[in-house]
Amino acid sequence: MQTADLHQFFAPAGVAIVGARRSPGFGYGIPIVLQRLGWGDRLRLVNPAGGELHGLPVYERIADVPDPVDLAVVIVPAASVPAVLEEIAARGIRHVIIESAGFAEVDAEGRALQERAGSIAAERGIRVIGPNCVGVINTANRFTSADILEEALTPGSTAIIAQSGVFGNILMDMLYEYKLYVSKVVTLGNRMDVNEIDLLEYLKGDEKTKVIMAYLEGVSDGRLFKETLQGVTREKPVLVLKSGCTEKGRAATESHTGSLSGEDALYDAVFTQAGAIRAGNLEELVEMTRVFATQPPPAGNRLGVLTVSGSLGVLATDAAVNHGLALPPAASATVEKLRREAPDWMNIKNPLDIGPFQAYEMALAAMMEDPHFDMVLAITVLPFAIYKRIPSRELAGKSYFGDIASMRKSAPGKPLVVCAVGHSEFVFQMREVAGPDVPVFISPEPAVRALAALHDYWALTGRPPR
Amino acid sequence: MQTADLHQFFAPAGVAIVGARRSPGFGYGIPIVLQRLGWGDRLRLVNPAGGELHGLPVYERIADVPDPVDLAVVIVPAASVPAVLEEIAARGIRHVIIESAGFAEVDAEGRALQERAGSIAAERGIRVIGPNCVGVINTANRFTSADILEEALTPGSTAIIAQSGVFGNILMDMLYEYKLYVSKVVTLGNRMDVNEIDLLEYLKGDEKTKVIMAYLEGVSDGRLFKETLQGVTREKPVLVLKSGCTEKGRAATESHTGSLSGEDALYDAVFTQAGAIRAGNLEELVEMTRVFATQPPPAGNRLGVLTVSGSLGVLATDAAVNHGLALPPAASATVEKLRREAPDWMNIKNPLDIGPFQAYEMALAAMMEDPHFDMVLAITVLPFAIYKRIPSRELAGKSYFGDIASMRKSAPGKPLVVCAVGHSEFVFQMREVAGPDVPVFISPEPAVRALAALHDYWALTGRPPR
Repeated sequence: MQTADLHQFFAPAGVAIVGARRSPGFGYGIPIVLQRLGWGDRLRLVNPAGGELHGLPVYERIADVPDPVDLAVVIVPAASVPAVLEEIAARGIRHVIIESAGFAEVDAEGRALQERAGSIAAERGIRVIGPNCVGVINTANRFTSADILEEALTPGSTAIIAQSGVFGNILMDMLYEYKLYVSKVVTLGNRMDVNEIDLLEYLKGDEKTKVIMAYLEGVSDGRLFKETLQGVTREKPVLVLKSGCTEKGRAATESHTGSLSGEDALYDAVFTQAGAIRAGNLEELVEMTRVFATQPPPAGNRLGVLTVSGSLGVLATDAAVNHGLALPPAASATVEKLRREAPDWMNIKNPLDIGPFQAYEMALAAMMEDPHFDMVLAITVLPFAIYKRIPSRELAGKSYFGDIASMRKSAPGKPLVVCAVGHSEFVFQMREVAGPDVPVFISPEPAVRALAALHDYWALTGRPPR
Repeated sequence: MQTADLHQFFAPAGVAIVGARRSPGFGYGIPIVLQRLGWGDRLRLVNPAGGELHGLPVYERIADVPDPVDLAVVIVPAASVPAVLEEIAARGIRHVIIESAGFAEVDAEGRALQERAGSIAAERGIRVIGPNCVGVINTANRFTSADILEEALTPGSTAIIAQSGVFGNILMDMLYEYKLYVSKVVTLGNRMDVNEIDLLEYLKGDEKTKVIMAYLEGVSDGRLFKETLQGVTREKPVLVLKSGCTEKGRAATESHTGSLSGEDALYDAVFTQAGAIRAGNLEELVEMTRVFATQPPPAGNRLGVLTVSGSLGVLATDAAVNHGLALPPAASATVEKLRREAPDWMNIKNPLDIGPFQAYEMALAAMMEDPHFDMVLAITVLPFAIYKRIPSRELAGKSYFGDIASMRKSAPGKPLVVCAVGHSEFVFQMREVAGPDVPVFISPEPAVRALAALHDYWALTGRPPR
């Protein structure tokens, strides 16, 4: 298959909404979204009732829809889909997103219906995303077939492949919360035609996409999947959450998007051999993506830890060692510098526990410059009692880290991650101070795990640091 | 040792702050806190400078301090501690919290100093908590030797044992965020005398304490620790985060609180055999405590999952099976009830994926009543785009769950946990709606893991459900 073939899904010349309607639902909401996003002049609405909607004419038959139109978004009852597909083919439209549910995810009847629709698409040479999905998002041209948050359409570097529509939304919302944005999103649904392999191949060549995150419940062709995935991970990192690991989970999957997932251990091997990063759960997927999307490739596995709490330093050390990172001592120039400034009680080691010594900025800058460290984890904690007494929150943050955004920029080859432990008000404040380019975690272990994954990926692909 | 011996640490007749002072720090802040908490009439300040502080007389010598006083909180430079201990003993005070740092956690000299102080305490029959700690909190009588958030002094049922002062604060702040409160907190520091074994034994008999959470970097006596722990877990659950699992971590620990942690695998065995629940990391410790502190013992391992997203149901199923929970079908009465109300496309299974069908409350109530389920996980997700359009947030939450607090109360023997997936604004909203008695998690896996731990604990201790 030509991946060029998928391009119209993301960048159509014009789009027909088949099943536009006045009552609440996608058929009502998506035309509004597209108009607001500037697609009004390339938006065609279709409904046998005809008339007008949102100030646009509603065509009674797909055959009547004028150019430009090379993509159809189908939101009609499942039973009508085969007939609609015939009409779409007759009109010469070759790309279709079927959002309707009620196919293989429901029962045998639905499965048969999906097969019939699939045959029509194949015979007529139509590419289909779905059914049972919300289609695509492309932030570069602000095109979407989903009802999404306009602010989340800021162009970013992460692409999302999600089997279910809900998951596409979840992942986007979670990135958005950290001021991280997407390049493209695709929700695959029941994968009647276009599947995760097609999309991986397509996103491999997508210049806007630097990192791919995927939620999969199963794959269509194990051998081809692995081969394709391997090709993609040589170009850019792929982070995967694969569910349906257990027999029970697989049973639940079947009824959900109508796919069959394979054996879990096999998937583990496939992901490892293909160089993909497998997350153990949803939170880990998001945590790791935050680090991959913002941090440069580290030059090696040597982690420097700065902390205001010895206990949290110990937790970070445990995690680092468990995940294959080294904690070498600081370079002698760093040690001398710190020795000059630090109080007597301070042990100058790695982790560097500065305790209540008010020199976080100096110590952090020294570690970011230290050639013994390939990456830095900066741990901070503030009891809520003290936090609440600080008059200016913003200042409190700055006095901790200094100008952390500048530090991030001045060491372009050294990953930097912050861990802010405490009440969420404090954590949110630290996020503001750190800015979108320095991920803030709420405990040491996930931060270290993500840094280790970043190191492992770049060590495997052999990409030199910038 | 008599555990009664520890009671004065938590409920002194009167307390002397040795090292009260005008300059910022504990010596300045703690007297303020104690006055505010109503301890002004039982608060004695000591400093060789004499004079007055916070409107109270400052005694130049401990010998001069008038009754009532049976606890001393020491905040003087480390080098002065041995002499101060002699004076305290001479005054007839037998309980001492040493908050000063600069002992075994620093260097060999500090270790020697700590040993000297320890010998004095042993000879004079003084019980000591610390050094290098922030002592205790008792919410029942609002006594504390730490500078804490007054709101966090609401009496609760969870006791915290933390090796470091910072960790005591962290855990309290994290519980506070979920409107969970503590009974007692103790930070052990370098454990010159009083250690985790003493405290476990003491908290076993503490009526206010229903759940114990502990952060440990090492234990003083492995055999006795296990024996004591086993005795405690027969009475109430103990959740433990043990760090210093790796050689490197142990090295970091030594410099931190001056303790030596043993082998990690050994600890695993000890915790399992003693019936304690070991958390893998800080977040898991808090997550599990939230469930133990709020949910009743389940009658068995059968989990019912309600979800609006098939994908999240699959993730919950994977986690449930991996952690030894069963997902039986609903009872036929429940199935019939749902069949009558539900649309055709809905598969009535477990997990029950109700999709966009607006009947969350009815379905949740049915599952809480269903005798086939020993516990219920209610998963909800709302794309931020939709959340932002809902005019009344509170209403949005209520329309999801109905009166979840009543459901919690009307099924007193069935644990109920919510999973709200999406942007944190939505999550915080769901937390408000669910109230403090129903824990809200942000993804299915940790929720299921905590429920499984709850089941395992009660299955082991054989306590029948209420």
